[in-house]
Formats: sequence, C-alpha cells, structure tokens
Amino acid sequence: MKVLQTLSLYSAILSLAMLSVRPAAADEGMWTFDTFPAKIMYDHYGWAPDQSWLDHVRKSAVRLTGGCSASFVSSAGLIFTNHHCVASCLFDNSSAQADLLDNGFTAGRREDEKSCPGQQAEVVTAIADVTGTVQGAYRGMAGETLTRARDAAIAKIEADGCPDRKTTRCQVVTLFGGGQYKLYTYRIYSDVRLVWAPEDRAATFGGDPDNFNFPRYSLDASFLRAYEDGKPIRPSDHLTWTARAPKQDELTFVVGNPGATARLWTQSQFAFEREMRLPITVAILSELRGRLIAAMETSPEKQREGRDTLNGIENSLKVYIGRTKALNDPAFAERLAKGEADLRQRSADNVAIGDPWANVTGAVQAYRTVYLPYRFITPSSDLYGYARALVMAGKEKAKPNGERLPGYTDSALPLLEKQILDKRPLYPWLEKLQLSWSLSKAREYLGVDDADTQLLLGKESPEQLAERLVSQTRLSDPAYRRQLWEGGLQVIEASSDPLVQYALRLEPRQRALTRQVDEAYQGPLTVAGGKLAQARFAAYSDALYPDATFTLRISYGQVKGWTERGKSVPYATVMGGTFDRATGSAPFDLPAAFAAHRNAIDLAATYDFVTTNDIIGGNSGSPVVDRSGAVIGAAFDGNIHSLGGNYGYDPLLNRTVVVSTDAVQEALEKLYPAPALVAELKAR
Amino acid sequence: MKVLQTLSLYSAILSLAMLSVRPAAADEGMWTFDTFPAKIMYDHYGWAPDQSWLDHVRKSAVRLTGGCSASFVSSAGLIFTNHHCVASCLFDNSSAQADLLDNGFTAGRREDEKSCPGQQAEVVTAIADVTGTVQGAYRGMAGETLTRARDAAIAKIEADGCPDRKTTRCQVVTLFGGGQYKLYTYRIYSDVRLVWAPEDRAATFGGDPDNFNFPRYSLDASFLRAYEDGKPIRPSDHLTWTARAPKQDELTFVVGNPGATARLWTQSQFAFEREMRLPITVAILSELRGRLIAAMETSPEKQREGRDTLNGIENSLKVYIGRTKALNDPAFAERLAKGEADLRQRSADNVAIGDPWANVTGAVQAYRTVYLPYRFITPSSDLYGYARALVMAGKEKAKPNGERLPGYTDSALPLLEKQILDKRPLYPWLEKLQLSWSLSKAREYLGVDDADTQLLLGKESPEQLAERLVSQTRLSDPAYRRQLWEGGLQVIEASSDPLVQYALRLEPRQRALTRQVDEAYQGPLTVAGGKLAQARFAAYSDALYPDATFTLRISYGQVKGWTERGKSVPYATVMGGTFDRATGSAPFDLPAAFAAHRNAIDLAATYDFVTTNDIIGGNSGSPVVDRSGAVIGAAFDGNIHSLGGNYGYDPLLNRTVVVSTDAVQEALEKLYPAPALVAELKAR
Repeated sequence: MKVLQTLSLYSAILSLAMLSVRPAAADEGMWTFDTFPAKIMYDHYGWAPDQSWLDHVRKSAVRLTGGCSASFVSSAGLIFTNHHCVASCLFDNSSAQADLLDNGFTAGRREDEKSCPGQQAEVVTAIADVTGTVQGAYRGMAGETLTRARDAAIAKIEADGCPDRKTTRCQVVTLFGGGQYKLYTYRIYSDVRLVWAPEDRAATFGGDPDNFNFPRYSLDASFLRAYEDGKPIRPSDHLTWTARAPKQDELTFVVGNPGATARLWTQSQFAFEREMRLPITVAILSELRGRLIAAMETSPEKQREGRDTLNGIENSLKVYIGRTKALNDPAFAERLAKGEADLRQRSADNVAIGDPWANVTGAVQAYRTVYLPYRFITPSSDLYGYARALVMAGKEKAKPNGERLPGYTDSALPLLEKQILDKRPLYPWLEKLQLSWSLSKAREYLGVDDADTQLLLGKESPEQLAERLVSQTRLSDPAYRRQLWEGGLQVIEASSDPLVQYALRLEPRQRALTRQVDEAYQGPLTVAGGKLAQARFAAYSDALYPDATFTLRISYGQVKGWTERGKSVPYATVMGGTFDRATGSAPFDLPAAFAAHRNAIDLAATYDFVTTNDIIGGNSGSPVVDRSGAVIGAAFDGNIHSLGGNYGYDPLLNRTVVVSTDAVQEALEKLYPAPALVAELKAR
Repeated sequence: MKVLQTLSLYSAILSLAMLSVRPAAADEGMWTFDTFPAKIMYDHYGWAPDQSWLDHVRKSAVRLTGGCSASFVSSAGLIFTNHHCVASCLFDNSSAQADLLDNGFTAGRREDEKSCPGQQAEVVTAIADVTGTVQGAYRGMAGETLTRARDAAIAKIEADGCPDRKTTRCQVVTLFGGGQYKLYTYRIYSDVRLVWAPEDRAATFGGDPDNFNFPRYSLDASFLRAYEDGKPIRPSDHLTWTARAPKQDELTFVVGNPGATARLWTQSQFAFEREMRLPITVAILSELRGRLIAAMETSPEKQREGRDTLNGIENSLKVYIGRTKALNDPAFAERLAKGEADLRQRSADNVAIGDPWANVTGAVQAYRTVYLPYRFITPSSDLYGYARALVMAGKEKAKPNGERLPGYTDSALPLLEKQILDKRPLYPWLEKLQLSWSLSKAREYLGVDDADTQLLLGKESPEQLAERLVSQTRLSDPAYRRQLWEGGLQVIEASSDPLVQYALRLEPRQRALTRQVDEAYQGPLTVAGGKLAQARFAAYSDALYPDATFTLRISYGQVKGWTERGKSVPYATVMGGTFDRATGSAPFDLPAAFAAHRNAIDLAATYDFVTTNDIIGGNSGSPVVDRSGAVIGAAFDGNIHSLGGNYGYDPLLNRTVVVSTDAVQEALEKLYPAPALVAELKAR
C-alpha cells in the first residue's frame, strides 16, 4: 500500500487541503506525537504509554523518502521495513544476469550491502509550532498573492532552521488545512544500503489479487542500513527486536508516516473526488495497466523490467477503486454528510467562523474548470521527469529563496539533486509506453483541437513524439544530468537534447496553470481551512488529529480479526498455510525457498496478522510496537475496508495487515539464512 | 456509435427495463411509427409528413442484425449504411494479403459482391399490439414465475406469428418497461453482400480522438445488397438517392433502430448505474483497451487483426465515459430528479398506481447483491461465446418452445444458427487476450476465495486457462460447430473439446444466477414497469415515446449547429477541410485517395453535417431523409453531448452527425470509382 511513490508519478496533484472533522472513534486516529490522546486511551484500555515511552519510539522511527516508513532495530543503524519498500532498490540493482528482485538478496558481509538510488532515511529531531509566523505572513491576503506570501514565509523558516543541509532537513507541515503550521526538523542519512530481502514471490505471494486482502501469506519484510561517511551510523534509539507471536486483543501501536487522508474535506470536495477525479484516474490508470501487462508478456526481459512499475500501478488502482466504492456507498456517504452537518450546526452561532463551506464550494467550482489542463499538461515518464525537474530547478535556482516554488527552495534542493543525479536503470520501451500513454490521454480528455493538446503534440501523434523524444534524449546518462544540473539555466536552454527542449516548451504553460490553481483554488482553500480548523477546535476542543501529511504519527489499537458477511476472519495466519494456498500458478506459486525448506520451518509460526490500528498508504514498513516498546511486526497493508479509510475510519472493519517478527526471524534462520543479521538483532 | 455489437460482447446485461417519463421537448423523441406526433410537429414547424410518406420511409428502412440501421436505395436491393457497420464484414473478408478494411472495396460486377458473415437484413412488415395477451399471461404473478409465464406467452405469439422462419421473423417488443407489448413482424434477408466501402482511413479519419466530436471529416458510408436464392431482391419501396448539400434549418428525419436508452428509469436505477455499473465497466474496459493497444503494437498482423475489436472497445468506452460524465453532472442529475418528482406528484392521488418507485428501489437493492457474480460468471471471447451458445441451445432445444429461455425460442434460433455456423476468421492471440482479461477481472471483482472464482479458474491462472482452452479447442472450425449444433446435447456432452466442457461446467451456475436475477429483479421490475406506464399515460396522455429497443423509430429535427462555450459550431464541413486537418500522423493522416485525387474532387462539397435529431447507438447507418422523402445522408455518430442522451435529450446541445450523400457521390465518382453503382443510384 505504498501509495506515495506512484501518486507522484500518475497524479498531478498530491494532496488537496484538508477541512472539517469529528472527534475520533475508538482506535481511530493518526495522532501527532505532541497530541497523543493518552487519557482517552487509558480510559478505554486501562493503560497508555508515558512520555519516555513515546520519546523512545519516536526517536527509533525512520521515514524513507521513497514513500515508506521504517524503524531502527540495532545500534548499528539497521533498519526494518517492508520488502515492497525496497523493491525499487532491488530492481535498480538487478540485471538480466542477476535478478535480485526475483531471487532476493542477503549481504553476507557489511561491504556487500548495496546502495539504494534516490533513497534517504530521515529521523525527526524536533517539532516546533510556527502557526503564528506563517499565518501572519498572509493575513488579509487572497488568491495567488496569499500562496506566494505563505510559501515565502515557509521557505525562510526552513532555510533559517537548517543551515546545514547535508545532515539536516527542515519541513514546514500544514496541518488542519492551514489551521496549524509545524516545523519538523530531521536528521537525514542519504546513504542507505540494502542488507536483506527475501525472494519476490515470498513477499508478494498472492500478488495483486491478494493485495489489500486477508488472510494473507506474505513475507513483506526487508532490512536496510543507514551509513554516513562510509560507516554504519549509531542511532540514539532503536527498537528492541522480539521474535514472537502476537496475542489476540493485545495492544499495538503503529509508528510511521501516513501519506495523505481526506477525512477533513467538505462535501463539495468529496463530490469533486467522486464525480471527476476518481473516475478519470481509474479509467486512465486501468488503460496503462493493460498496456503494461500486454507489453510485458512479449519477453522475459520486459517481464522483469516492467514489474516494479506494474506493481505500483496495480496498487494505486486498487486504492482508487476502493475509494470510488466507498464514496459511492450510500451509507458511507451519509456518514460523511452527517459529520459536516454536525460541525455546521455547532458553528451556527459562531460569527467569527462565517461560511467557510461555501468558500470551499466556490474554490472547488473554480478548480473544476481548470482541472483537466492542469492535470494533463505534465506528461508521465521518468525521463521527462528529469527534464522537467532540471528546467524548473534551473529557473527557480536563479531566484531568491523566498520567491521560489515550494519544491525548489534551499531546503528542498538537496533531496531533489540526489534524486536527479543518482544512477538508476531506465528502459526505453517503458519510457515510451508511459509517455505515449499519457500524451494520448491528454488528447482524449482535452480534445484534439484544444490549445494545450496542440502544445503537447504539435503535428505528431503520441506514439511518434514519444518515440522521437525517448530515442534521442541523453538524459538516461547521469553524467549528462549532472552537467545540466550544475550548468544551470543557460546550459539547459542551450542544450540540443529534444526532451530538454520539450520540457522548456511546456514549462511556461505549466507554470501559468499552477498560478491559476493557486489563485482560484489553493488560496481560497487556505483561508477557508483556517476558519474550518477554528470551527472544529471550538466545537470539539482538542480530541482531534489532523489529516495525514506523510509526517510521523502514532496510532493505537489491538490485535483483532473482524466479521465479514457473517463469517469471522481470524486475526492471524501461520507459515504452513502458504502450502495450502499455493496453486502452482502465479501469483500463487510456492516460493522456491518454501518448497526447499518445507521440513525445516515451523509451520505453526505466526505469519501475518491484523490489528485495528488506523493507517494509510505511506505507513508501509511502520514498526508495530507492543506495550513494552518492542517491535513485533511491520505493517505492510490494510484490508479492503481500509481503502475507505481515506475518508473515514470504521472500527468494526478497518484493519492493518502486519508481517510478524516471528515469521521474519524464521525466514532469516531457515529460508534465506543471514546468521550475522540474526546475531545483530538478538544483540539488542 | 454502433453500441449494440460491443455491448453484447462486454456487458452481461443488454438492457434494464425502462421506467418513468416526461413529455417530449422540441425535436426530442425516438417515436414509434404508430404514434408519430404529427400534430406537435405541424404546430412547431408548419409541416408534418402524412401517412403515405410515413409508410414509404418505413418500408424502405432496413435493420442490420449486427447492430445497425440502413435503407434500401435502389430497386435491386441496394442498401445504404455506414462504413463502420460493414467494418466487421470487410475484416472477415480480409487477409494479410488483401486488407479490404485498410484499402476499401469496390465490387466491379454483381458477382464480385462479398458475403457478410452473420449479417442479416430485416424489414418491418407489421406491428400488432399484444399487450393484453402478454400481461394477461402473468397477471397476479411475481418473481421468476412471472418472467417464465411472460416469456412463454411471448414465445407462443412469436411462433404462431411466423410459421415460415426462413423468410420471416417475429419479435415481441417490450415498451414502457412492460406497459406495452408489440409484435413486430419482419421480412428477413439472410444473404447480405458487400458492394462498396471506402478505405478505412477515409471513414475513420480522426479515429477515436474525433469519435463523438464535430466538426468531422469522415466518409463513414458503404453499400450492401440483399440477396435471396442467389439473386438481388426487389424491395417494395426504396428511398430516392439525392446527392445534394443540406440547407441550414431544413427539416430532417432519421429513420432507424436506436438500440437502448434509459430515459424512463427511476432515481434508484440511475444511482445503481452511477455508483456501480458504470465505474466497473469503465475500469475493466479501459484495461482491455490498454492490453489490446500494446498487443497490437507488436506486429503488423496483430495491428490488422485487432483493429475491429479495438474500435468497438474504444467506441463503447467513450459512450460509458460520456454517460458517467452526464450522471455526475449536478445540473443534469437535478433535471432527472425533477422529472421523477413531477410524475410522482401528478400520481399522488391515483390510488391504482401505488408506489412502483419503492418497488423498483427494492428490486435494484436485491440486484446489487447478485450483480457481481451475474456479471462475471460469463467469460468474454468469441470462441467461448460459440461454446456457450452451443451448450445453451443444446439444452434449450430439448424443451418445448414455451419453456425455453428467450434467446433460444423457435423464433430466435434461425439467427443464432446463422451466427454460430457462418465462417469467420478468429485469431487465437486475440481470443486468449480477451479470455484471460475477463477471467482476471472476474477474480479481481469476486475475490480469490470466492466460489465462483474457483469455478471459473480451478487451480489455473487466467493466463494458463486461456492458453489451454484456446489452443486446444476445435471451435474455430465451422464444420465442427455444425457437428455440435446438429448433434444436439448428447454430442455436445460427449465432446472432448475442452472449451465445450468448460462451457458445460459453467452453465448450471450461469442459469442459477439468471433465475436469481429474474426472481429478485426482472420480475418485480416488470410489475412496477406496468404501474409506471399507467402513471405516465394518466399524467401526460399520449405525448410519449418509449425507451429505445433496437426497433424501428423515427425522429424529426433540423439541420443546425450549436454553441459550445460561447463559440458557435457550424452545421457542416466541406471535403476540402480534410486537407487542413490532416497532420500526416495517424489517425489524422490523409487518406491515400484524397492525396491522389486532390485536384479532381470538389473541395467545397458538403462532407459531414449535424442535425437536432434525437438518436442513440443502433441508429448508425440510418437514412437522413428530407421533406420530399429523399435520402440526403446517413447518420453515423452523435456529438459529445449526445452521450448523455441515454438519459435525456437536450435540444440546445444534442446533435446527430451525418455523412452527406453529396460527399458519398463525390467519392463514388472520383475517389473510389464505382460507375455502375452511381448509375444504379441515379436510376431511382
């Protein structure tokens, strides 16, 4: 359920602002560490963590910039996360001769550990409230003027907060849709290496059909290590590794970075989602899925080269289809409507609030008219992504920090630089497939005679243009990317590379559309968001958690199955169940190591289990921690009901799916032996 | 916009019943010939056709069983229709050596005219009201008992009405969702041959991007000829061919067979459509589109072999996406809601009506629970379609006529036999692609552990199963199909053909699900439909037309452009416009004949034009007739606004797109010369 990575590729807009809320139900909530509801939890469960417990797990938590969560599990910088969070790294380190994704990987010695391109590990070291400064910078403003002033204030806070950009990163996070702004400071580790991963089939057993389902038989686990100056780092805190089975109803905490939720949206935002964004997204992504499936069938190389991308697409699609289902479910929709009605009613006499709901409706209305060009003006492909980032960075870097677009401020540039310059394999057929698909969808949704279609295509067909740009560009060469990055705008503009020139051609229009969106949508939303947060705090005091923002949160819950159409779903599976579920045909073919070591492994060992913790995409790899603070698993998925969790949590049905430490240790000892790693985990 | 063909392939349910109506707006209405609103038209336009005019065009109108409309245009059985209505025939007569679809076809002499597999021409000869008999047969019944009694009554009427099934066909048509039943008697011509078709690019210039759009530059026209006993037939009536440009605002009539509309549905039916059926349909068809696009890119043969299927999929998808947009448009949805509210209000004091809306809501609710298995239990592929039809026919033929399922009664069998036994090319790769796609979607929507998924797949993957069934079946051989058809159930059950055995395995479950749908949905809907029709007639008297049923209708309107976002769209294009619109790259590459004969053709000749006539998929190929009764074009498409026409007609925006006889004659004389054909058309 690693949504973020694929979202950034296939959706022009990562997150809308978040507006409107009700108090949390039992186990509901992705809480910030500074507002953990200890009293509520204590009243419900008779136990709650104290501050030192919270500090310890917070300091042990790791954010992976690829879109995942993780935790330190040794004093030598060992990181525990999901297999699907390192799949790109396995893939980038693979070749037709050595398929690490397919076969798995075990670093026998530290020096065999393999670099993960584009990956960075981040640990929160401080959280400060900067609401007054940011809101003060735009008070009384509107539209694009407001968003510019806000962004300038944020850029200054971030730059001032982290003068050392090699080892620290500052991010101002917008909570409650503009109701609060917090400065998160991270210690960053930009040298992350792969230590251990099982064979792909063991991690992805059941594939897309089983994704977001349970019972499950998946070893979705892996280990990384953070390095600095060529040596493993020594984190201040790490979680204790405990290989044991979970107990029914025991308390569990999930500590990680949920990517984005939309629980605080207003009715008009839900309507836009249901009526426009989701239908378009599901239709075009489904077609891309089909194109890729058929292209991969033509050769074993393409089968290998396209797999990581296909997994991402199928995961995203399942998410969007699940969300469509939730918003189209009359009972679910009614619940959302009642939530808003309640807040409106409680705010009716509060004249300071005004009618922010109407303001959001107006902003959404304006957004509808610009949505299609805004969405389709930016083609999809990794190579085009390089070209666009280079062009944008070239133009933005020439400005003072406070005037740059958010992704190009001093605090954002180091990670962008790493992502652009890190060497990674690219496959021309895959680039062409994605580029021609996205261009043909732009033409379909904007129309043949539309000016933006003509800007995108000229007289060429999507296929011709994609063929020409991908086959003639030099951007797959990291050295050439470095030359353009370091050369800056002048060198970029003088480049004869057709993809760079194409990015230059599109850039002014992309910028104009972003300005339009800021003026008519983001600006008004920011003002309304502040008012809605005010209404919410007045109505419900502080029993509130903000929508997810891919920043550190903690949720509490229990190990617990659920009831599905009258049948109870047990809370855990055992490793031996894999043999019963295997059919012999993909994606239900038995992993090779399981077949080879059937007699060695403990068939009764707990494999995967479910808890009531409230999570969402981005939480993948989050440690699941018990009362003692020990890690007993890594969250890797939600059940099918969790897909509606984007809009609201249902304690009866929403479940987090976890791979147990018991199963991981069994695998480390018997299936994909890594004795040094076991010793390191046991050393504590 | 030939929706019917593709619908029958990709959607398990062709039409739901039709319930609720308002009086028609100006130019709105697909009128049956026995209720043509001559007075309303006369009041509005100062002219209306008389009975002999109506009789003449009715007798000249032709229905093509492939899902299209057409007309006789000579005394020697010459039929005028669209190119896309004969694309399958061109395709079926093509080979890698002679690509008739690509190059077009002109029969120099009658003996060169080519048979169209599965095609049949039908002319209405009588319409009789059988409402009393049918309703009487099920009065007081409910559920599946009701649908059985209704179907038995219909089977008897049809069998009695057409004892000669070689040349006549009887069909009882359900109008107003069960409010009326009419017996249509057809003279049938089952030997239909291809006379002339332009090159594909001239007909499909602009391809999918321009489909359902205007201005348009498309020669979507062709000619067929009906034969009997090896000789061209002599129809009682035919339309006069007049090669001329249409005049702005002149009156036009479209005479043809609109396939299906849903204008009389209740709110709960629209909700089901918007919330469930359309989202699933768009998602899965989009994936199929992607799979096919990518597979076709792998070789020129597949490019050719897959094109007809791809065109059908893309056409359907545009229809479904347009419908999704219409139902998700708040203003459009409000109009539909108001229509129902008006009828409810007018019926409030009519105690005989009761609350059929609540009954429909209950039926839809029950349908929701069975919809997914009902939809996915029948895999897609032409070869599987043969197997299923053979198995079903084998079982049904053993029963008395009155007890058979509707598609297998004596009146339905001759066309089914023809469709099964006619020789046509099949491509194993395309069959596997469709079969594995549909099986993988069944697994996705039903779930891996579902009993129906297990019935469909056993232990095999969708790919393995499709590979095995398609590569081992003999059903692509017409002689083998004949052997099974003639041998009957015993021979079918004894067959070792794996696809036949597979169809036998699925059949009981398919039948059980159909019974469930009849019991919980179709039965209650039929009763409610009668009540709703009663309410409608009481509230609005007879200014009503029924939902479309792929039976003969007439609509009146005018040649007229429209206004789109403040810009006026002219009512016609000229042939010379093709050269301006051509980009050199597909699907906007100039047709070869246009390039070769640029100087010969009249660049100012009217090419395509739009009218306000109210049509829908199935109307493709319909003659567009002027006041004098002459044919001045063939309807081949609607504009993008016409897609919402499934639910409601908007006189300001809905338009029919027509290829003019002026352009067709220009093509016959200069682009794809057919002098004998021109002489035949001019002879009148």
